[in-house]
Amino acid sequence: MNNKTRRIRINEDGPREGFQIESVSIPTARKVDLINALSGTGLAEIQIASFVHPRKVPSMADAEDIVATVEMVPGVKYTALYMNARGLERAISTGRLSIDDLGFNVCASPAFLARNENATPEARKQRKRQMIDVARGHGIRPANSGSVSAAFGCNFQGDIGIDMLLDAVRDVHEFAAEFDCRIDKLGFSDTMAWATPDKIRRTLDVVYTHYPDVEISLHLHDTRGMAMANALAAIDLGVREFDTSIGGLGGCPFAAHQGAAGNLCTEDFAFMCEEMGYETGLDLDRLIEAAQLAESIVGHSLPGKVKSGGSLASYRRR
Amino acid sequence: MNNKTRRIRINEDGPREGFQIESVSIPTARKVDLINALSGTGLAEIQIASFVHPRKVPSMADAEDIVATVEMVPGVKYTALYMNARGLERAISTGRLSIDDLGFNVCASPAFLARNENATPEARKQRKRQMIDVARGHGIRPANSGSVSAAFGCNFQGDIGIDMLLDAVRDVHEFAAEFDCRIDKLGFSDTMAWATPDKIRRTLDVVYTHYPDVEISLHLHDTRGMAMANALAAIDLGVREFDTSIGGLGGCPFAAHQGAAGNLCTEDFAFMCEEMGYETGLDLDRLIEAAQLAESIVGHSLPGKVKSGGSLASYRRR
Repeated sequence: MNNKTRRIRINEDGPREGFQIESVSIPTARKVDLINALSGTGLAEIQIASFVHPRKVPSMADAEDIVATVEMVPGVKYTALYMNARGLERAISTGRLSIDDLGFNVCASPAFLARNENATPEARKQRKRQMIDVARGHGIRPANSGSVSAAFGCNFQGDIGIDMLLDAVRDVHEFAAEFDCRIDKLGFSDTMAWATPDKIRRTLDVVYTHYPDVEISLHLHDTRGMAMANALAAIDLGVREFDTSIGGLGGCPFAAHQGAAGNLCTEDFAFMCEEMGYETGLDLDRLIEAAQLAESIVGHSLPGKVKSGGSLASYRRR
Repeated sequence: MNNKTRRIRINEDGPREGFQIESVSIPTARKVDLINALSGTGLAEIQIASFVHPRKVPSMADAEDIVATVEMVPGVKYTALYMNARGLERAISTGRLSIDDLGFNVCASPAFLARNENATPEARKQRKRQMIDVARGHGIRPANSGSVSAAFGCNFQGDIGIDMLLDAVRDVHEFAAEFDCRIDKLGFSDTMAWATPDKIRRTLDVVYTHYPDVEISLHLHDTRGMAMANALAAIDLGVREFDTSIGGLGGCPFAAHQGAAGNLCTEDFAFMCEEMGYETGLDLDRLIEAAQLAESIVGHSLPGKVKSGGSLASYRRR
């Protein structure tokens, strides 16, 4: 419990998480409409595209077009996802993205790595080393941050115990040390939604004990309906940074979930934070509008609740 | 925090909550199919019908038929909802329902009472006195229990502060005293989903302080995506009884929500409890089957997640 501030940082992943999983072909202009709407909600960071191979994720083939067309608002950080040197080159070439998040990520589940990325842990590190080389060529240093995916469990590996997770965290630190980097920030991704509030509590308690100065952030999926309760448990322990998706967009195309639910929903989570006296800096009414826009763009209902149920402020105003 | 047992009691409200809100006309036999499926999941109590005026809630006009047709499993308590003496008479006449839950309920929001039931608080009490008279005529005593609806807030009244809630709880006690009844159990219903984990904590803390021996139960709606986080907050404080709905069926036909979301979802909540080491006595696989059946009966997707995401046990078995 290393954090007493009432400020909670919410990073929007909806455009990237959401559009990569939607099976319909969404026009680039509509994707950009959503990103532009999100830019006006107070969000400090929005992940807007994924530079993966268009054959692997055809729905992200327009990544360059998206980045080129978005009306970027000063003060908002626009980021993208890249899994290898080629993807990073493409992202840098746009000249419009923040590439300051080149941290040290490992996967807690070897089985997931093999299925999701067809790679061994060492091959994945080698890929990251190549990315860091590319970045350095553009004068970009790796970040003092790391992350662990499949941090709480894996559909292919099963439970990720605390010892396994601690091994992964140690691995992150050693990997960073290769490049004379510290780990100030550490992200845990519940990629396949194995976390429960109890597991969040037991895990983070141990991690904070071992690494009292590290700032933890969470990336939570709602595949088993636990995202909000997990986020609550994490806030209670001092976590102050979360990735979320507008409307609850998202899922994981490789995670073998038939009915893969999306991420922790941005507007529902912001609602909870604000109602509990935390500051998010977000405009809930505008988030709700953006969530409704997201729904109209994907053409089906999205799991977020507040966009239909209404904020309490809207009732208090009556 | 008056309760250290690891046993959590889950009462199923899906058939009543769900079918009363569905706009389609669902054949009685299909409703009974769902109730029969639920009877085999380990649930101790299932609310299967609502004895309200068929003009007010046409989808519940077949209440008698439902009760007559269900294959009742010994050890499972089958209950119904009734709002007045006529409804109670109808429920008793079936001869197949548990009528031992005739407790003292008040509404924390006068505005909701007026809009939802077209009644003053006193008129509502008078109606309950008539119901108790009817019950006594059948040898049924009122129960040592009470409940408060709209306990945390109301779309028409606004926030329900702790003082207002305590007034309502006092009212419950005074009402019970009229009939020489104690209040051993107290249910709070978040009828219009104004609760947040913070509000649950602050409220229950005060209530437990004033009434340390009372057992609290919760009826939570997920209209703003808070149900699971609210339930977690309540479990942490010692609450061990919850009403839930299979698949997240439900809503409130009078609560003026366009996109009214349902109740805390039975199988998702049971999943959380069991994964956190609490005992529910429920068979999660059978709950998931029942949730999938509920979905096929109502003909649209229901908000519950585990029925699509899968239990963790199903992955651990691989």
